[in-house]
Amino acid sequence: MSEQKIPYKIYISEDEIPKQWYNVRADMKVKPAPLLNPATWQPLKPEELAPIFCDELIAQELNDTDAYIDIPQEIQDYYKTYRPAPTVRAYHLEKALGTPAKIYYKFEGNNTSGSHKLNSAIAQAYYAKKQGLKGVTTETGAGQWGTALSMACAYLGLDCKVYMVKVSYEQKPFRREVMRTYGASVTASPSADTEVGRKILEKHPGTTGSLGCAISEAVEAATSNEGYRYVLGSVLNQVLLHQSVIGLEAKTALDKYNVTPDIIIGCAGGGSNLGGLISPFMGEKLRGEKDYRFIAVEPASCPSFTRGKFAYDFCDTGMICPLAKMYTLGSNFIPSANHAGGLRFHGMSTILSQLYHDGYMEAVAVEQTSVFEAAEQFARTEGILPAPESSHAIRVAIDEALKCKETGEEKTILFGLTGTGYFDMVAYEQFHNGTMTDYIPTDADLQSGFEGIPQFPGNEI
Amino acid sequence: MSEQKIPYKIYISEDEIPKQWYNVRADMKVKPAPLLNPATWQPLKPEELAPIFCDELIAQELNDTDAYIDIPQEIQDYYKTYRPAPTVRAYHLEKALGTPAKIYYKFEGNNTSGSHKLNSAIAQAYYAKKQGLKGVTTETGAGQWGTALSMACAYLGLDCKVYMVKVSYEQKPFRREVMRTYGASVTASPSADTEVGRKILEKHPGTTGSLGCAISEAVEAATSNEGYRYVLGSVLNQVLLHQSVIGLEAKTALDKYNVTPDIIIGCAGGGSNLGGLISPFMGEKLRGEKDYRFIAVEPASCPSFTRGKFAYDFCDTGMICPLAKMYTLGSNFIPSANHAGGLRFHGMSTILSQLYHDGYMEAVAVEQTSVFEAAEQFARTEGILPAPESSHAIRVAIDEALKCKETGEEKTILFGLTGTGYFDMVAYEQFHNGTMTDYIPTDADLQSGFEGIPQFPGNEI
Repeated sequence: MSEQKIPYKIYISEDEIPKQWYNVRADMKVKPAPLLNPATWQPLKPEELAPIFCDELIAQELNDTDAYIDIPQEIQDYYKTYRPAPTVRAYHLEKALGTPAKIYYKFEGNNTSGSHKLNSAIAQAYYAKKQGLKGVTTETGAGQWGTALSMACAYLGLDCKVYMVKVSYEQKPFRREVMRTYGASVTASPSADTEVGRKILEKHPGTTGSLGCAISEAVEAATSNEGYRYVLGSVLNQVLLHQSVIGLEAKTALDKYNVTPDIIIGCAGGGSNLGGLISPFMGEKLRGEKDYRFIAVEPASCPSFTRGKFAYDFCDTGMICPLAKMYTLGSNFIPSANHAGGLRFHGMSTILSQLYHDGYMEAVAVEQTSVFEAAEQFARTEGILPAPESSHAIRVAIDEALKCKETGEEKTILFGLTGTGYFDMVAYEQFHNGTMTDYIPTDADLQSGFEGIPQFPGNEI
Repeated sequence: MSEQKIPYKIYISEDEIPKQWYNVRADMKVKPAPLLNPATWQPLKPEELAPIFCDELIAQELNDTDAYIDIPQEIQDYYKTYRPAPTVRAYHLEKALGTPAKIYYKFEGNNTSGSHKLNSAIAQAYYAKKQGLKGVTTETGAGQWGTALSMACAYLGLDCKVYMVKVSYEQKPFRREVMRTYGASVTASPSADTEVGRKILEKHPGTTGSLGCAISEAVEAATSNEGYRYVLGSVLNQVLLHQSVIGLEAKTALDKYNVTPDIIIGCAGGGSNLGGLISPFMGEKLRGEKDYRFIAVEPASCPSFTRGKFAYDFCDTGMICPLAKMYTLGSNFIPSANHAGGLRFHGMSTILSQLYHDGYMEAVAVEQTSVFEAAEQFARTEGILPAPESSHAIRVAIDEALKCKETGEEKTILFGLTGTGYFDMVAYEQFHNGTMTDYIPTDADLQSGFEGIPQFPGNEI
């Protein structure tokens, strides 16, 4: 180990920002299972995806052989407006914990979207623009993805239609206004703009919407409007590919100081952050070059990895999207109103699901109040007010550091700090007021979700 | 000029973060006028200030001879958690404007307080801690200063009492929760906690408070509680001293690439950001080494520099604070509800006032809707959603760049981007909805403010 003094924040140079994404699938012996057509149970062909997704993104989605894919210059130029993102040594947190562990975090929240989502938003918007499209459609729940996509579209001069779950639209007017500042049209979902929206409104006039419904509206808006395609901020292989910039930058930064993490921790909703953070390190592990412990952290209220089934399932509650083989709680599983909106997805990236299934990764589920305790301790020592999602990783990083305190081990811990919590103060308020609750679904709760997983030959659960 | 490629973001190294603050007063031929005791009209002695302010900060307040003052190691360590702040080349904005001008901005918003305020908050909290005090008191309007002070106090383990103007307390619950996350006690002002608060509540039971009242409560809380002192986030000489890190870092960054700005632009409320940004450049101008154009930008609704009087006046509407010689609209001037809460102060830093009076600096006043037009253009091209305050500087930077487009001049423009606008979305919403209004006070409006300026020998206006 080098004795070189490690700064609080390691900024790589602009020239060191990745020029290629790393595709971890290329190094996986067992590849993630292909997406299936929900009508035929057969692997989807590119032409079947073309009405929904951009051509180049379909190619990336299906590419499990090329380890590196060039990042177009225009995307590199945009990355330079908010990257490099720092890799931070948490000296102050270490001191507060009194741990011999060395804690690092890769901070992706220093951009207006407030999260890592921008890394894939600019890529997806770029390929839409390059294909000559007029615009893109998407859904957003908590709002980070919608904000990121709005920013990317504003920069490229692309139309952006966001279907925002009605309850969020009404409760998070600030997120909505940020998107409008970037020129996006933001529609409360369900809306009267789409057939599926009108049907739902007729059946349930007072509904506050759901992510599943918003996805259905966004897909309909993409397929029924000339020159539009649908884009998605997590779960997909292409998204993990784009998010590899997180891990690549972190690795470049740590390599400068000869630092090798023993444990790498990330929160996991659909898997975009975790998959991006671990990818180059996982590559080394898959190729047998190095060993690392990887820990996925999920909310106890939505425990896809730790209590879900590994099976083909629908990605959306509307059951109109392709089937993906993943750890799932069932597409009709309704998670409790956990404040980490970005971690309330019933399924998980197929890449991460396969890696977890094959024993390359661990997973733990943590409860909400303990997550906010960690968030507050982190804010007070390291300064940054973390997003509830990111705070799941903080919780486990602190737990691991405290184990080191007991054993005296000087382990090196790296975790992903995906974003900031400036738009999540209602959750912090509940925490301060003591009105925050924890929720762990019973086995019976989970069973009703599992019953929604489609049964077909080879998909027995 | 070097032909070296200039990156989008210039990050200086951790070792280059300033280790000394620069005290521009040392290079001023005409020193800023001393603070006066409002009872005697005589210059205040340190011992008269001691019940209100920390001893070391009083020394800094009165020190107009030492050009450099060492930054204690503990403050340097905290600076490293959120600094260096980048100096950014606005390539995308330049392209959108089609200007030959080269635009740079020093971005101080990448910390949880969302602004440059943290630079002085940590310094003031540190000296309070060093003096063995239990805590500090302050007021906050929009909330940036209160947030910054809360963060600094959480880090140092110091108690923090914030009096928040009641209307903000109610309208900005998120800001309040951020402060509570950092352990501050936040009280809506006027409150029943102080004598002055109780008196005001008796007289005006329905009042939504004012900054002047909150200052009075914070000062009373400091002087009537053993072990507390009062701290302030702008206007004071000590604050401009601490904020010199902004300009020192910007200068170090630009010097690396042999870039010399022709024009330096900052928004001006009490002067903390502008004074900090320009200080090392102003030092060169004062010493006759280099020439720069400095432009202070203020809201047309609160035009201290452009339409105020240069006279001794009260810093607070309660008229309990010392008198400062400054450009002022009168301590009873009530600015319209402009959304740039940080620019609604009736007076101005005595340092900047003297420099402006002596012709070293220009000032312009701009209207609110034109400021938000600039803010939106900036957000869409450069990505960052700017604070309304910062957007005043953006407006004038764009205007100067467009003048270059007309003349073909390749001027280099540097402006201060003090912070982000994540807690200002109500203002952006009004802008989007077309309900934002402009307000320019009439001469008669200003006259009634001027009448509140105290009359005494030598203070004729």
